[in-house]
Amino acid sequence: MSRYLLSKRDVEDLVVGAAILGTGGGGDPYIGKLMVLQELERGKRVEIVGVDEVDNDSFIVPVAAMGTPVVLVEKIPSGKEALFSLNLLEKYFNKKVEFISPIEAGGVNSTIPLVVGAERGLPVIDADGMGRAFPELQMVTFHLYGIKATPMAISDERGNAAILDTIDNYWAERIARVITVRYGGSAWIAIYPTFGKPYKEAAVRGSISLAIEIGRTLREAKAGGKNPIDALLDLVHGFELFRGKIIDVQRFNIGGFARGEAVIDGLDDYKGSRLTIRFQNENLVAIRDDDIIASVPDLITVLDIETGRPITTERLRYGLRVLVIGIPCNEKWRTPKGLEVVGPKYFGYDIEYVPIERRMKEVGRP
Amino acid sequence: MSRYLLSKRDVEDLVVGAAILGTGGGGDPYIGKLMVLQELERGKRVEIVGVDEVDNDSFIVPVAAMGTPVVLVEKIPSGKEALFSLNLLEKYFNKKVEFISPIEAGGVNSTIPLVVGAERGLPVIDADGMGRAFPELQMVTFHLYGIKATPMAISDERGNAAILDTIDNYWAERIARVITVRYGGSAWIAIYPTFGKPYKEAAVRGSISLAIEIGRTLREAKAGGKNPIDALLDLVHGFELFRGKIIDVQRFNIGGFARGEAVIDGLDDYKGSRLTIRFQNENLVAIRDDDIIASVPDLITVLDIETGRPITTERLRYGLRVLVIGIPCNEKWRTPKGLEVVGPKYFGYDIEYVPIERRMKEVGRP
Repeated sequence: MSRYLLSKRDVEDLVVGAAILGTGGGGDPYIGKLMVLQELERGKRVEIVGVDEVDNDSFIVPVAAMGTPVVLVEKIPSGKEALFSLNLLEKYFNKKVEFISPIEAGGVNSTIPLVVGAERGLPVIDADGMGRAFPELQMVTFHLYGIKATPMAISDERGNAAILDTIDNYWAERIARVITVRYGGSAWIAIYPTFGKPYKEAAVRGSISLAIEIGRTLREAKAGGKNPIDALLDLVHGFELFRGKIIDVQRFNIGGFARGEAVIDGLDDYKGSRLTIRFQNENLVAIRDDDIIASVPDLITVLDIETGRPITTERLRYGLRVLVIGIPCNEKWRTPKGLEVVGPKYFGYDIEYVPIERRMKEVGRP
Repeated sequence: MSRYLLSKRDVEDLVVGAAILGTGGGGDPYIGKLMVLQELERGKRVEIVGVDEVDNDSFIVPVAAMGTPVVLVEKIPSGKEALFSLNLLEKYFNKKVEFISPIEAGGVNSTIPLVVGAERGLPVIDADGMGRAFPELQMVTFHLYGIKATPMAISDERGNAAILDTIDNYWAERIARVITVRYGGSAWIAIYPTFGKPYKEAAVRGSISLAIEIGRTLREAKAGGKNPIDALLDLVHGFELFRGKIIDVQRFNIGGFARGEAVIDGLDDYKGSRLTIRFQNENLVAIRDDDIIASVPDLITVLDIETGRPITTERLRYGLRVLVIGIPCNEKWRTPKGLEVVGPKYFGYDIEYVPIERRMKEVGRP
């Protein structure tokens, strides 16, 4: 189905799937859900279109929230805040936006584009720029394909706004980040304005429908008395990485990011082992005892062992019993250029990236 | 004379006067001088026009450098960098700029508008927004009269740029400041875009011609064997505040400003006394022993006792023998609104502002 209207049940499923793809980042999926349900209850429609529905010369603008997710929890947004940035950028280009796109899959950044689409009556493309969530603006497949982050608009909930035009996407990240911090920790952006042709080449396709499918798979497995985790891992070709109890969480907000680590003591098969997850908004690496068993750009997601629900980095806390899973990232990230942008070295880990399916074979269970 | 072309001698005089009005801020006047002389030598013309030559509906844009002056010394600018911001803002407004204006009197910010005017073939208005130099963007008489700092353009020498549109002028300062720091310490701005009618009401008139007159007065006094300082104080209705030797200079770059203080041990009539000058890019207060003898918004300027040449805050150093003078500020700053914006309390000094001419009567010589 290449064009469809989002139902309330789709929204419920989508936010669960988006939180799993979000690998700990993207903010609270519950807030994201409320945003979209509110739109639907007010009679607005959220139309999702497949990438192939987009003409080569269609003007597309991704929208998102930027900042430390914990701030988004404190200042509950409606999702409409990003509309201001979108409208500003549209005025700057003097060109009508035809499609909205998510920039990442994860938390509120999966749902903000839906709210903006609903408010503006514009379809949202079933794709994104990551197939997961990442903490920095240049960490999108659009960047890998030479699409410029700027001109971009960045606004706050007070009505402050800026249009940035930088020499490269790293500079866009640098400038937007200090503005976000000065705004108070979160900002609303319209970024990577582009056209259908380059978009189709660069985007990660099907992220919205995948998120919905993940949520539905979990829901149906539970309802059918099946093991939801097995069903999930089957769907996303994922791996169980660890089971355990969180015994320590350290976090510090530095440079506009929520950085930190969680230490998990093994349970069941993993008794006697320890897993450390390091994060920067999103989970970056999982270290079991002395071995790195998963790293960016592959996805590392922490689930509540009881409910199977994904736990975002800002919700990690002492005592939670969790199941950690790993999911292979989109192939675009596994290219040399992709790894240069989001590989472990970029994040300061002096290791080579090894695809998770290979690591799993090499390391095995403890 | 309400329209004239700047001669090389005018430029020499102007930079001396601007450095005196700059009260320690605005960067190196020597660099400023080179900027303009280079333009004249390349056959460009710098046309200065009186405020009354400006039509009520003329579009006026002030241009300036922003940042810590010491950075400007390290990265020697041509002055043309500000052209990029001007052109960007013009494009954003889709409206031809008719006049350039200085935003402040002082160092390179007196000469950048002249370079931009020369390059673009636009006249520069004989006025500014301070009648001196101040460290923050909202500290202009334009602000007192309700003119908005934004939309403003802010760029760096690499080609990075942003257009800001903020809810008030304090937010413009906050956002522009973090961008400036991220750019590396200096930025080029086109700001307070406005029209002739509000400009004429809000501007400090005659600042360029006053700066030239100050320079000429000093030059002619020296040539005529007269005391140049007496001639200067006579012209600007100023006061001698102190003579002494600098025995300590402390400085620290915080939040994008060059902050610090200089301590001066008295010489001649001031023997046994000590003067402390605190600065934030510009000199803010002069404290003699335990008495504040001058404060913002009045001007405090440090001159080399031998040459009579003004010394900017980044050039203050141990061992220099200096003469400190005070000059009454423009009347617009002495209103309640003016003092709210640039009075000693805004800078963290819990004292009432007392006009320098009254302080001089009350305190007298030590």
